Amino acid sequence: MTNNTAYAELMAYQRQTEALAKVAERLGWDQETMMPRGGAEQRGEEMAAIEGVLHARRTNPQIAQWLADADAVDEVAAAQLYHIDRAYRRAVKVPGDLAEALARLTSVAQGIWAGARAADKVADFLPTLAEVIALKRQEAACLAEGGDLYDALIDDYEPGATAETLGDMFDRMRPRLVALRAAVLECEAPPALQGHFAQEAQLRLARDLASAFGYDWSRGRIDLAVHPFSSGGGDDSRITTRVVESDPFNCIYSTIHEVGHSSYELAIDPDYALTPLGHGVSMGVHESQSRIYENQIGRGRGFTTWMHGQMVERFGALNVDGPEGFYRAVNRVQPGFIRTEADEVHYNLHIMMRFDLERALIRGDLAVNDLEAAWNDRLLADFGVAVDRPAHGMLQDVHWSVGLFGYFPTYTLGNVYAGCLNKAMRAAVPDLDAALARGDTSAATGWLREAVQRHGGLRQPRATIAAACGFEPDEGPLLDYLEAKFRDLYRL
Amino acid sequence: MTNNTAYAELMAYQRQTEALAKVAERLGWDQETMMPRGGAEQRGEEMAAIEGVLHARRTNPQIAQWLADADAVDEVAAAQLYHIDRAYRRAVKVPGDLAEALARLTSVAQGIWAGARAADKVADFLPTLAEVIALKRQEAACLAEGGDLYDALIDDYEPGATAETLGDMFDRMRPRLVALRAAVLECEAPPALQGHFAQEAQLRLARDLASAFGYDWSRGRIDLAVHPFSSGGGDDSRITTRVVESDPFNCIYSTIHEVGHSSYELAIDPDYALTPLGHGVSMGVHESQSRIYENQIGRGRGFTTWMHGQMVERFGALNVDGPEGFYRAVNRVQPGFIRTEADEVHYNLHIMMRFDLERALIRGDLAVNDLEAAWNDRLLADFGVAVDRPAHGMLQDVHWSVGLFGYFPTYTLGNVYAGCLNKAMRAAVPDLDAALARGDTSAATGWLREAVQRHGGLRQPRATIAAACGFEPDEGPLLDYLEAKFRDLYRL
Repeated sequence: MTNNTAYAELMAYQRQTEALAKVAERLGWDQETMMPRGGAEQRGEEMAAIEGVLHARRTNPQIAQWLADADAVDEVAAAQLYHIDRAYRRAVKVPGDLAEALARLTSVAQGIWAGARAADKVADFLPTLAEVIALKRQEAACLAEGGDLYDALIDDYEPGATAETLGDMFDRMRPRLVALRAAVLECEAPPALQGHFAQEAQLRLARDLASAFGYDWSRGRIDLAVHPFSSGGGDDSRITTRVVESDPFNCIYSTIHEVGHSSYELAIDPDYALTPLGHGVSMGVHESQSRIYENQIGRGRGFTTWMHGQMVERFGALNVDGPEGFYRAVNRVQPGFIRTEADEVHYNLHIMMRFDLERALIRGDLAVNDLEAAWNDRLLADFGVAVDRPAHGMLQDVHWSVGLFGYFPTYTLGNVYAGCLNKAMRAAVPDLDAALARGDTSAATGWLREAVQRHGGLRQPRATIAAACGFEPDEGPLLDYLEAKFRDLYRL
Repeated sequence: MTNNTAYAELMAYQRQTEALAKVAERLGWDQETMMPRGGAEQRGEEMAAIEGVLHARRTNPQIAQWLADADAVDEVAAAQLYHIDRAYRRAVKVPGDLAEALARLTSVAQGIWAGARAADKVADFLPTLAEVIALKRQEAACLAEGGDLYDALIDDYEPGATAETLGDMFDRMRPRLVALRAAVLECEAPPALQGHFAQEAQLRLARDLASAFGYDWSRGRIDLAVHPFSSGGGDDSRITTRVVESDPFNCIYSTIHEVGHSSYELAIDPDYALTPLGHGVSMGVHESQSRIYENQIGRGRGFTTWMHGQMVERFGALNVDGPEGFYRAVNRVQPGFIRTEADEVHYNLHIMMRFDLERALIRGDLAVNDLEAAWNDRLLADFGVAVDRPAHGMLQDVHWSVGLFGYFPTYTLGNVYAGCLNKAMRAAVPDLDAALARGDTSAATGWLREAVQRHGGLRQPRATIAAACGFEPDEGPLLDYLEAKFRDLYRL
């Protein structure tokens, strides 16, 4: 076998594996948006079966042979082989029955979480969460080979990151965020947006916002789900949103956030379709796209000026004072329960709390039965608010039910990357706010598409951001941006 | 290995295969209801990949060993082994690359058909249809092993049936149907229902009709699709419908028809879930359920009395004279283009025409390029109507695009079985029309559930019907029913 033949065979094999992984992801989407409730247990069997197929393919010893024989003739081939090698080495560490058990359990656990959240009953979820954590700890032990369990899980979402480096970064960020929060909360809060905003009109606005951000409807769609998410890639990447009729910002910013994720997937070079390069390269880089769409663009003075006009047109007079009052309402800083609804000042403090709690859960330093108390104590200490119901507390997010431990810190890493990208984008694109004030995001999204999105998994996560920015990423630009924005808003 | 171990291992293996087949079916549903158009090509790759997995599993030589070692300890085990053996012998005859090519092509062909139908352009579909036929002929040649190609394809949908036995039955049916048609068409037609029936109101009615037929919403859902179908089984069987605002019967009877299919799947003994017994046993038996729901129940005088009240309540005064006028409008006999909209007198004549055309296509006696002319000539000869546009002619149905050759005759076989079941059900359930006139279908659907549906694949298709009826099925009861119904309606 020539080296080129080995590479071609490996890529053909990989292409089928990627197609099957897309199938599994589409089933997950269906489960959250379309599936009748009674189908949950059967869906668990289906997810376990396809996970079994994927695991068998990913651990096929032939892959090792192909990897040994194949030559990296160029940068793209080298990157493909890097990802395949990494995934193979990961897969062979986890026994097939554990992978299937995790797929089956997390598929069912998601429904149990949704039920417990709707009923506001922590006790309904705890036994299942305990099982999920037990299996994730088993998986982590297989992956860590004696190393730190939590690091092994982080590595799935953010290659190259560790709890130590992330924790150090959080420690550097925390004092400036806490100081900014304190200064802001001493000021009088601007008026919040109030009123009743009908679901149908919000969903129409959500569609128009997605269009404004260039979402490709021929390769996507939007639906309602309990927890907004984006799903899929290549030529089919869908988003979900949710609606609270008293708070249109929930739907608006969930939608823009998920459009950021989906747009990244849809913008990747079509030559990488159904290959390891055909995905967002890490969750941190993924979040950098969703967060810059949502915050640096979507919550900026320019874009909110346009959005104010849209809101007035659709919902009539608002209780805020013109575009500037709307901008201030959008960016109102307020301690709250819900991460996804948090303002930019509080958001990363939510993440730091999750990071500490889940690290303790995985390391075995916190028992599942003590989680609710630990959560509520920490929220009170950090935010000064007492959780009023579990759906506003430890039941608010889907992540842990589906086994996503090590994922939360990538949200703040994404914010840090978004801060860097925003700095570079503003330098590269003059008069961006003037275009955004007309609802024209094309210069911003076009820059991100060229600088970041189209490259998919070609470069390492940090290198992807560094190449886009022209400098090594750190937390500085994000903190500078937050301080400048909120000092201006609150006239500090 | 003890014999019981072999059986247990085989069934565990089979369970995973069945779960993966459910995944493939769910993807097919998604493609027709939810998938953005641009995802079509990628979906073809996904379908091919999962078809490759299924084919590899279904041809695993270990199955032959298990089959040789396993003992049928009871009737259920014997039936399971029968189905597994039959499926294995079928699967090993078809090369994996052909199975994958068929999955890839038919996945894409469906979209091409839908586009050609929307644009009314036969030429847009012909090259693809030619490819589908070429691959189906290849597949049939593998299956037939020297026998008749078309018989080999029929066997997939109706084990035990052949073109000869079906053709003989059609020949016996044709004179009585033609005579009934001629007698009816000499009479003055009753007034047709006219008006504008808004899509939203029709969809609400469709949901309520499904509920009236006992559809289990906790394990199903209804969506719009170009071509109505039901999909899935076990604890997740979904239906689709379509709406024509000038003709509510399109939506109404498509819905009831698909509810019949889905109810069959959902009623099968849960002990058979994810096993070969956990499906409707053949397409003919499947159609017997959808057609008896739709026609002998749904188009009967009893149920249409209730439905008339529903229509008046939802749409206001109708242009027909009370429940009896509505019953006559529902059952108005009129030569028409569209099979799915045909009255009970014409329906089987549509099928006989498809049967002859597709048999000629598969046997190589009719070229694809001559199909449109052959279709239009035959429709003119049999129905006295000239096809006005391809969407009303050979582009009307999805079947051939997805490779369903040999499937059409099972519709008439289903009608024949429905005729037998209706005779037995009416004998077993007194005063059925009185209950149906109150919108209460529970006695009818309950009888069908017990007599047919819950048994799934336990017995052979004909034996399933014979056991339910207490007599050997033939076309007599259907023709007696049609003659009695339409002689009464048209006062012949």
